[in-house]
Amino acid sequence: MKILVINAGSSSIKYQLFDMERERALASGMAEKIGEETGRLTHKVIVNDGMPQKKVMDGAIEDHREGLNRISDLLADPVLGVIRDKSEISAVSHRVVHGGEAFQVPTIIDEAVIAEIKKNTPLAPLHNPPNLVGIEVARAIFPGTPQVAVFDTAFHHTMSRHAYIYALPYDLYQKYGVRRYGFHGTSHAYVSERAAEHLGKPLEALNLITIHLGNGASMAAIERGRCVDTSMGMTPLEGLVMGTRAGDLDPALPFFLARHLKMTLDQIDGLLNKQSGLKGICGTNDMREVLSRVEAGDERARLALDIYTYRIKKYIGAYFAVLGAVDAVVFTGGIGENASIVRELSCHDLTGLGISIEHKKNNTVTSDIREISAAGSNIKVLVVPANEELKIAQETKKMVSF
Amino acid sequence: MKILVINAGSSSIKYQLFDMERERALASGMAEKIGEETGRLTHKVIVNDGMPQKKVMDGAIEDHREGLNRISDLLADPVLGVIRDKSEISAVSHRVVHGGEAFQVPTIIDEAVIAEIKKNTPLAPLHNPPNLVGIEVARAIFPGTPQVAVFDTAFHHTMSRHAYIYALPYDLYQKYGVRRYGFHGTSHAYVSERAAEHLGKPLEALNLITIHLGNGASMAAIERGRCVDTSMGMTPLEGLVMGTRAGDLDPALPFFLARHLKMTLDQIDGLLNKQSGLKGICGTNDMREVLSRVEAGDERARLALDIYTYRIKKYIGAYFAVLGAVDAVVFTGGIGENASIVRELSCHDLTGLGISIEHKKNNTVTSDIREISAAGSNIKVLVVPANEELKIAQETKKMVSF
Repeated sequence: MKILVINAGSSSIKYQLFDMERERALASGMAEKIGEETGRLTHKVIVNDGMPQKKVMDGAIEDHREGLNRISDLLADPVLGVIRDKSEISAVSHRVVHGGEAFQVPTIIDEAVIAEIKKNTPLAPLHNPPNLVGIEVARAIFPGTPQVAVFDTAFHHTMSRHAYIYALPYDLYQKYGVRRYGFHGTSHAYVSERAAEHLGKPLEALNLITIHLGNGASMAAIERGRCVDTSMGMTPLEGLVMGTRAGDLDPALPFFLARHLKMTLDQIDGLLNKQSGLKGICGTNDMREVLSRVEAGDERARLALDIYTYRIKKYIGAYFAVLGAVDAVVFTGGIGENASIVRELSCHDLTGLGISIEHKKNNTVTSDIREISAAGSNIKVLVVPANEELKIAQETKKMVSF
Repeated sequence: MKILVINAGSSSIKYQLFDMERERALASGMAEKIGEETGRLTHKVIVNDGMPQKKVMDGAIEDHREGLNRISDLLADPVLGVIRDKSEISAVSHRVVHGGEAFQVPTIIDEAVIAEIKKNTPLAPLHNPPNLVGIEVARAIFPGTPQVAVFDTAFHHTMSRHAYIYALPYDLYQKYGVRRYGFHGTSHAYVSERAAEHLGKPLEALNLITIHLGNGASMAAIERGRCVDTSMGMTPLEGLVMGTRAGDLDPALPFFLARHLKMTLDQIDGLLNKQSGLKGICGTNDMREVLSRVEAGDERARLALDIYTYRIKKYIGAYFAVLGAVDAVVFTGGIGENASIVRELSCHDLTGLGISIEHKKNNTVTSDIREISAAGSNIKVLVVPANEELKIAQETKKMVSF
């Protein structure tokens, strides 16, 4: 069975084609700058255990439909292709950011589902509309192929009310769905399963704190396999410091910016989502650059790193209190997997919680799951490579296999 | 030495007159609804160890000047008075909410100090202006008497940069002072000193988590006597759930309210500051009413209580992680001192951190400092009666004694 996983953004489509018998990707890539003067399509063919073959094609991509058509053609290309015909694709799965309260599991897409995803747009105005465009063009290009929506919010639906209700007028929740939803759910779910495998215990017997650190960043408190709290909120802006997003903040800040600096709401939105985070503090949203500047003695980069890791540490403590006892802390995502100094600082001086990292293990680079906690650490600390796309494909397979 | 402590709000003046030889209040009271059609002046005379004599006078109070004049007259009243003449007052101390970065200690007020407090008004538009009015009228009514400003923010000035800088464009901090300041500092300082006395150790040898739960609510992480983090931020809106304030929130919420519900910024400000918190969730901002409703089986009141205490618990965990080790958790403020169920739920299932409360001790009511932790609790849990006014008077005494 072959499953195509699609993640449609406002001007991009990321994709991966999986062979589900072997649970491995056959091809992956991205169409970007869709609708701009010069677009780019990058296609990678993953050869058995070898280096991927990569082809980059520059040139305008008019719209998402053209983008996905070209992706579909590439997948079946006589030279670069990995399938003979697009009919080989058994299902198309779509990463959808906001499922609201309606979607707690992956769902086969029909008109009613599309309408419901649209209804959640006010909660995710930046994400759900392009996800819907992706769904629309995929239905046109792969007619008759089952389409499945896998929601970023779904894994968090097990939170208790006291964890997801904000201290706001209650009718904002009842009438408009204002509450904590959480995102990155597929990633938190995937790495918690991998962690359980590694620890040789059923997920239902484990309490975990999972830390996804990529461009976006979030944490989850997972009690016996069920998410009980997470750092992102109604939108992906809340919680940890991210590349360009501020994360937790005094909610009165917008009033100050509007009244004292005469900023408009759109400007404040742009400031908090695109000009803040690591970028706001030290000028770059790229953690690799932050770290190389830290090594060169740049004070502002050091401050950015300290704030970033201090906030992770506070959430580790908070989630320890929520869970009562913790079996493992799990790092994942580009930064979580690669930035050993981030892991070290986030777990620094946490022996009081039973967490300690072994410096040497933490600095050993492998591409597989690994344990970096010290021998005496009560709580295991793991690094688990993220693979949301595989998890999305797995969930999709479950939905379409009967 | 007698010191008059004043806390001026937008339509009120609270006051207490202290005899600093015995460190006890001689009289206290409040002028309220200043500038409204019917005002009220409540004056209490504290008789030696007896019940206070209370006098309530209804009638318009034109402005803060009239209010303070009448207070001054009452203090020296032939019948109700506790001093013969206002010249007996050695100093007037003013609680000032926002000291910004300029004021890290209590400060004798002069023109330059007034100008600097004014400069901080954009950071505390609701609080600093009435504080300044209080200073102005007190200088007119008590000319030649030293006036001292004691800042709510001062105790928190020892925080590290990574604790007080938000992940925002750095020039918002540099140019406009946007950062975490924290409030209730005098209360956190006072109860940490009392806790150290009770524990029989120097404050410099103790790590404490202090929890001030009144109408406003905040927590502080105190490392060897120095505040290293606190839950309120640039304004008193951030952090714990309060009577009518939301506390921590997805910073994107205002965008949703403005765009989707067409609310203005002022409406959103009012919503988050005056219609949220306990009141927003269950309709009342009075914890006593919340608790009696909980007992009657009211589900919404139960949710409010659960959210309120869950957030305290998360901060206890976060501050444990920040401090590495903790000697005592200290509850204070009207709710912190009186609501045993709030303390119980906030510390529930924290044995993993070394915190456990003894049910019977927790439910024993006394008006003095007391220990409520179980015999086996690694971390002491204390209840310490708040007395910010005494601490303000003590600080003032230090400033004017030479």
